[in-house]
Amino acid sequence: MPYGYHGRILHVDLTNGTLEIETPDEHFYRKYMGGSAMGLYYALKLIPQGADPLGPENVLILTTGPMTGAPVSGQSRLTATAKSPLTGGIGDSQSGGYFPAELKFAGFDGIVIRGRAEKPVYLWLHDGEAELRDASHLWGKVTGEVEDLIKQELGEKKMEILQVGPAGEKGVRFAALMNMANRANGRTGMGAVMGSKNLKAIAVKGSSKWRPKVADPKALREISRWGAQNLESSDAAGLALLGTSEIVVPQSKGGGLPTRNWESGYFEGAEKISGERMYNEILKERDTCYGCVIRCKRVVEINEGPYKVDPRYGGPEYETLATFGSYCGIDDLHAIAYANQICNMYGMDTISCGATIAWAMECFEHGLITTEDTGGIELRFGNAEAMVKMTEMIAKREGFGDILAEGSARAAQIIGRGTEEFVVAVKGQEVPAHMPHVKRSLGLIYAVNPFGADHQSSEHDPAYKAYPERMAALDLKDPVSRLVLNGEKVRFATVTQWLYSAMDTVNVCQFVYGPAWQLYDTEQLVQMMRAVTGWNVTVHELLEVGRRRLNMLRAFNAREGIGRDQDKLPKKFFKQALKGGKSDGIILSEEEIERAKDLYYAMNGWDVETGTPTRAALESVSLGWLADMLGL
Amino acid sequence: MPYGYHGRILHVDLTNGTLEIETPDEHFYRKYMGGSAMGLYYALKLIPQGADPLGPENVLILTTGPMTGAPVSGQSRLTATAKSPLTGGIGDSQSGGYFPAELKFAGFDGIVIRGRAEKPVYLWLHDGEAELRDASHLWGKVTGEVEDLIKQELGEKKMEILQVGPAGEKGVRFAALMNMANRANGRTGMGAVMGSKNLKAIAVKGSSKWRPKVADPKALREISRWGAQNLESSDAAGLALLGTSEIVVPQSKGGGLPTRNWESGYFEGAEKISGERMYNEILKERDTCYGCVIRCKRVVEINEGPYKVDPRYGGPEYETLATFGSYCGIDDLHAIAYANQICNMYGMDTISCGATIAWAMECFEHGLITTEDTGGIELRFGNAEAMVKMTEMIAKREGFGDILAEGSARAAQIIGRGTEEFVVAVKGQEVPAHMPHVKRSLGLIYAVNPFGADHQSSEHDPAYKAYPERMAALDLKDPVSRLVLNGEKVRFATVTQWLYSAMDTVNVCQFVYGPAWQLYDTEQLVQMMRAVTGWNVTVHELLEVGRRRLNMLRAFNAREGIGRDQDKLPKKFFKQALKGGKSDGIILSEEEIERAKDLYYAMNGWDVETGTPTRAALESVSLGWLADMLGL
Repeated sequence: MPYGYHGRILHVDLTNGTLEIETPDEHFYRKYMGGSAMGLYYALKLIPQGADPLGPENVLILTTGPMTGAPVSGQSRLTATAKSPLTGGIGDSQSGGYFPAELKFAGFDGIVIRGRAEKPVYLWLHDGEAELRDASHLWGKVTGEVEDLIKQELGEKKMEILQVGPAGEKGVRFAALMNMANRANGRTGMGAVMGSKNLKAIAVKGSSKWRPKVADPKALREISRWGAQNLESSDAAGLALLGTSEIVVPQSKGGGLPTRNWESGYFEGAEKISGERMYNEILKERDTCYGCVIRCKRVVEINEGPYKVDPRYGGPEYETLATFGSYCGIDDLHAIAYANQICNMYGMDTISCGATIAWAMECFEHGLITTEDTGGIELRFGNAEAMVKMTEMIAKREGFGDILAEGSARAAQIIGRGTEEFVVAVKGQEVPAHMPHVKRSLGLIYAVNPFGADHQSSEHDPAYKAYPERMAALDLKDPVSRLVLNGEKVRFATVTQWLYSAMDTVNVCQFVYGPAWQLYDTEQLVQMMRAVTGWNVTVHELLEVGRRRLNMLRAFNAREGIGRDQDKLPKKFFKQALKGGKSDGIILSEEEIERAKDLYYAMNGWDVETGTPTRAALESVSLGWLADMLGL
Repeated sequence: MPYGYHGRILHVDLTNGTLEIETPDEHFYRKYMGGSAMGLYYALKLIPQGADPLGPENVLILTTGPMTGAPVSGQSRLTATAKSPLTGGIGDSQSGGYFPAELKFAGFDGIVIRGRAEKPVYLWLHDGEAELRDASHLWGKVTGEVEDLIKQELGEKKMEILQVGPAGEKGVRFAALMNMANRANGRTGMGAVMGSKNLKAIAVKGSSKWRPKVADPKALREISRWGAQNLESSDAAGLALLGTSEIVVPQSKGGGLPTRNWESGYFEGAEKISGERMYNEILKERDTCYGCVIRCKRVVEINEGPYKVDPRYGGPEYETLATFGSYCGIDDLHAIAYANQICNMYGMDTISCGATIAWAMECFEHGLITTEDTGGIELRFGNAEAMVKMTEMIAKREGFGDILAEGSARAAQIIGRGTEEFVVAVKGQEVPAHMPHVKRSLGLIYAVNPFGADHQSSEHDPAYKAYPERMAALDLKDPVSRLVLNGEKVRFATVTQWLYSAMDTVNVCQFVYGPAWQLYDTEQLVQMMRAVTGWNVTVHELLEVGRRRLNMLRAFNAREGIGRDQDKLPKKFFKQALKGGKSDGIILSEEEIERAKDLYYAMNGWDVETGTPTRAALESVSLGWLADMLGL
């Protein structure tokens, strides 16, 4: 078995209650590597076309990568793959924490979960062994409680638990998988999938005996030491100090902080919900993921007022500050931190949750949703109390929350009355807090990304400072203004999408590795992969793996009839110019996006009419078997 | 100016007799790097559509690369680019020797030659300066004589001279550029282009003052030392001992040595024309190119019998042994060495020359060409005397040689009588001595290569031993049998074509660097590029540069109306099964090749109907300007 892996994939059939271990060969590992591509391999082979995302025929795959658990920053990542109940196409989501490394140390590279248990169960993994246990007593409980109960039951103080909260049990379409009660595989509703299977949790306990071997520990140690020594002077220093929230104020100043459901890119209350404010007022400590020196995670504590926050539930990320904050016109940091806590207790994606509420607020402001719908709640921009209440109601699927739990796109279809006009989502997934209006390539990637709008599927627009060195290694040598979407920019988006796709397959954190601003550059990622696996990995090989995974994502969607027609930005972006701030007056052009899509599909070798992979495209990444499967 | 370059391109206008120096910026150098892509940049910008290849509007570009002249193996290469008088499309050819390094040390990265001189001239370059001098007294003289005369005239004993022989003066369509009187830019008729411009020679004298700086001399020295120390145990050891001729016998045994104009892949006389025989009987010494430890060049001497050979004209390569030997059914090593000498004296490509004679021999055997045509010569397979005579007659364009000097494809058109059936050429260029019958990907590359059949434009079929490590770095992880041309094989051909294209642009020798069998692997090439240029070059960047150059080649041809229709293998391959030896009975399938072409064009993002680049393909390698130029 190659270094970095166990060569052991656990197959769980919940319907039959069986547990089996598959031992793929080295060729499989080098070709699909880990994370998302490995997950997609099983998703494509095992999920039947037309499967109900919340039915037993859906398959949930949890995967690590070769570097997971290695003593270096940014490697403890878990990828979840399944058909998405939010988008109806492929679902794909990453998280950090200690769980991914611990899963590896328990003796598994990944878990493939099929079927549905008759009664709630949880999975208990340790020392290379797996066991299904009754979870009836855990059902309905929030994440913190469940952690305590499982640890107590198993008599283990130090262990890691991945679980669905009550939101996942109830099929909230953007329910998350939670670990440590504060790390989320947030996007595309993976929590709803696990909940639908009556699988409440996965508890893992690692041991040093089950640490996979590293090919060149000395080389790895050196790179690791380099990271620790260079963090302060690196571009990741700000991330270490203020976490992702470091960008709240710069985004607003640059006209790129979505405000009042994307009416504006400037939020007058940005300072009040900023990373600096959080640092000064409610930060308890900085937390980290296994083995990472950056410590970007926030842990906040609020002991007074209406919004008390328990530090075990962590603290809000930039995205959360934006979606519960500026999206909703709310500048109450405590309320946002509290909404974040609800999401972590009940297991929900903060982006989709906050953005769905912001959409409902705009509809309310326009009179399309009224207190009759909301049960008396004045769901207006700026009403922090209403936002918090609605978050709770969604988590519990209570009242109007039961409709919003479907996500903004489905809720608009249920409600009608023209509320669709205000939906800011792609393929049913709400758009995260980076604005294509001021970083034009993002518009293309939001539109074409197979699992809906996502801000971690490509490098954001060219950072001139990063040219020529860091970008030139990717052969990106011609910087283009952030406000332009020409052929070269499409190339930038395409190539960096492949690279980010590779990072989700190697399964590493995009805040640590990357072409432009992170601690380690792409070449260092390659060196680390070499040190861990002993393979002579190159940037080219990584990009091809990334391209392979992207083709697998598109192929899954193609099978479900999802293609170019669904690669659409929200209508609002083309109809309504931004108001105020530096991006005042900016409006996107649908024609420009469609032209960029033409180029993008062609650059990927896909059918330009349908946006779906061709046989040639699949063969070009050694996926002939997939072309056969699709009947191409 | 970046390390490795001067930042100086000499522009010569022969019509006006002007000399100018252009100083491009670093961006230009990193984007086009050198060699072929740099040559194509000027070819596309300066050669008008429909230009007569032998008219003054054609432009001949001679380029080096960043590593040319650096103290390491395999870097002293010269690329010649112009519209080809042999194919009517783009022409492209590489050579080694000492001239390329000396050109660099004279102060120039490349030379762009336009127009036509009224009277014969030669160019004299030294110390960063350039001068045009009268060459009337050199016209009509053979290469050795010209070298002596120029050295005498300039009073320099040590200098390097690139020149056309009498064949180039007379427009033999496969005339070569010669340097050291024994190194040839052999293919695509670049000698005819230079001859048509009345430019007889380019004499260069370097000085240590004009050596470009290297970014990291220590790192380069280490790699260089590694090469010297590991040569004996490397796959290049055989090349060092026997030169390219090491493969004569293995090719024949494997059924891959073209015999009697491709009637068979097995030559019963292979042993007699083998590298071993040459080594034992006529080898005088092993020669090398500037700075290279491999010493693959043969120097032979024959002092007795009808075929005396002067060592100054070197010795035959594998290709020459095949085309004048097995192609013609000739096992007389002395006769072959003598024909090789004629080619080097008069300046002709040995591949096209020998292959054209072999074609004429087959026509003669079938009675389609008679002694009436040949002036009494019995042009039969196995007739060494006739082969030698015909080589002389072609060089001088005498009698029937005047027709054969047009190359086999044009000669067949002139003669008619069904002689076309026996032509073994693609786009008018004769097929070299590697048989797609036993290395199936070569059939595809022979067909689609923009400047006609070429054996140095991709890796020959998968060498299993090289998997997984050396090929895996290119993400080629699934070896395919040599006799299969499936999707994965097309991918192999496509990706390695990009890599070989990159090597012709970085401008290094494919016998030294490469994915499979050479002294240095691709990663070491990258390390060397980094040491020389200081750029953070990656394998991906190199592949993209290679892809850029390939798109430029295709774009040039597209402008000339050359596309898929011309991407045709010789009919003979589909009509006539091989006879005898290990490949007995093998015949190629046109349908298989057409299917492979479909995939190949699509994998490159080109129009599958026409085989020409699309705007998306050009934009995908940052060549938007070229898409504009083509009106796409």
